[in-house]
Amino acid sequence: MCQLLGMNANTPTDVMFSFTGLACRATEHKDGFGVGFFEGKGLRLFVDAASACDSPVAGFIKHYPIRSEHVIAHIRKATQGEVTLPNTHPFVRELWGRYWLFAHNGDLKGFEPRLHGAFRPVGGTDSEKAFCWLMQELAKSHASVPDVAEMTRTLAELMPVLHAHGTFNMLLSNGQALWAHASTHLHWLVRRHPFSHAALRDDDVQVDFAQHTTPQDRVAIIATEPLTEGEAWTAFAPGELRAFVAGNPLPM
Amino acid sequence: MCQLLGMNANTPTDVMFSFTGLACRATEHKDGFGVGFFEGKGLRLFVDAASACDSPVAGFIKHYPIRSEHVIAHIRKATQGEVTLPNTHPFVRELWGRYWLFAHNGDLKGFEPRLHGAFRPVGGTDSEKAFCWLMQELAKSHASVPDVAEMTRTLAELMPVLHAHGTFNMLLSNGQALWAHASTHLHWLVRRHPFSHAALRDDDVQVDFAQHTTPQDRVAIIATEPLTEGEAWTAFAPGELRAFVAGNPLPM
Repeated sequence: MCQLLGMNANTPTDVMFSFTGLACRATEHKDGFGVGFFEGKGLRLFVDAASACDSPVAGFIKHYPIRSEHVIAHIRKATQGEVTLPNTHPFVRELWGRYWLFAHNGDLKGFEPRLHGAFRPVGGTDSEKAFCWLMQELAKSHASVPDVAEMTRTLAELMPVLHAHGTFNMLLSNGQALWAHASTHLHWLVRRHPFSHAALRDDDVQVDFAQHTTPQDRVAIIATEPLTEGEAWTAFAPGELRAFVAGNPLPM
Repeated sequence: MCQLLGMNANTPTDVMFSFTGLACRATEHKDGFGVGFFEGKGLRLFVDAASACDSPVAGFIKHYPIRSEHVIAHIRKATQGEVTLPNTHPFVRELWGRYWLFAHNGDLKGFEPRLHGAFRPVGGTDSEKAFCWLMQELAKSHASVPDVAEMTRTLAELMPVLHAHGTFNMLLSNGQALWAHASTHLHWLVRRHPFSHAALRDDDVQVDFAQHTTPQDRVAIIATEPLTEGEAWTAFAPGELRAFVAGNPLPM
């Protein structure tokens, strides 16, 4: 299995603190990692088939503040597919003139969808196959980028099809919103004014968010397992899908 | 205008020396930069809307040896489209289960192709529009990835259509070969045994390739303007298209 980290904020925010917490778990999840950062419609993707513990690319990300409103990160423990760069999440495709960024935690058994559209996997994972199928079905459902509510309704129809094949925890973003679906383990919280302290569970690192924020800032963090002590994380229910916009979970 | 750098080798090779030479030219070409590295079918893409002179991402690439057989780099001097991340080359799309990496130097006037296929620009440049049109036409021409000779013939039919709209120097790779087309400025050379010294034209940096290579290594470098003194660069003719495989230019 793998671990996911998502961030959705109402102002460009860095994820150095949360990514450091995630990277601590890469001694077990050592088969590559990746992080994608939206900047408007633009995207930066850093991927490496090495462990986030000792990859120089991960070291760079832990110390260089890339500010973004939508971030998806993944550390991999391979279940299907070799430990190579093409099998490293997150994956990216373009649809309707927007980049779509996707990462998956889980294991889909016997999932062999008909890929008759414009999206084909480059690597050998069940995850990228699921992503290509998802993009294909989205492309059939709308003629151009729908609004977030409409997109969420379409995803709510498609998620159970994937979930039926096994564990399907995922994060998806197109730079407008961040969607999270849980089948087993996924947690979220929102950091807002008044900001407090938090300490990483896995490392001797603390942060006082009040020193780094303004009262208007609002940041949602989504992670496989809670990353911090001293904050109230909410667990997703099995089968739950949530859209996050500007640091807020939308009402379902 | 912009500047291009391509590398095609028969063994994974780093481009720290050549990228340092390119980045020196970023005082003039300061509107963003990008570098894509194939590792097998996998791809790493580093992009930044800042100048390669002082971007921390560029600093990381100059000092961290990422070894690849196919590299495309670009430094941008904006002619069409704002200085933002979505307008930063190289661009990537997936087709037939392969990533395609593209960078353009030039300026296409009044190029408004019918984009009725699966590829849409995310940003606002003429370059990304040309790339989307190219991918659309390739998708029509073959059912799956053709061999390099076949692909070169298809590109030879498509390049004049783009060239007719203005300056169209480009680099394209899918991880199997690197294609280069010139309409004005593009130069290439092959480094092979016996390796010699070279000195960057734009910086006080020298390298003795013999210390970093084996007798079997073969590396082709393609650049808008020659990057080094003491090496024999060959200029492309206007309208010339060349495929490079394993560090060799293929006979046309």
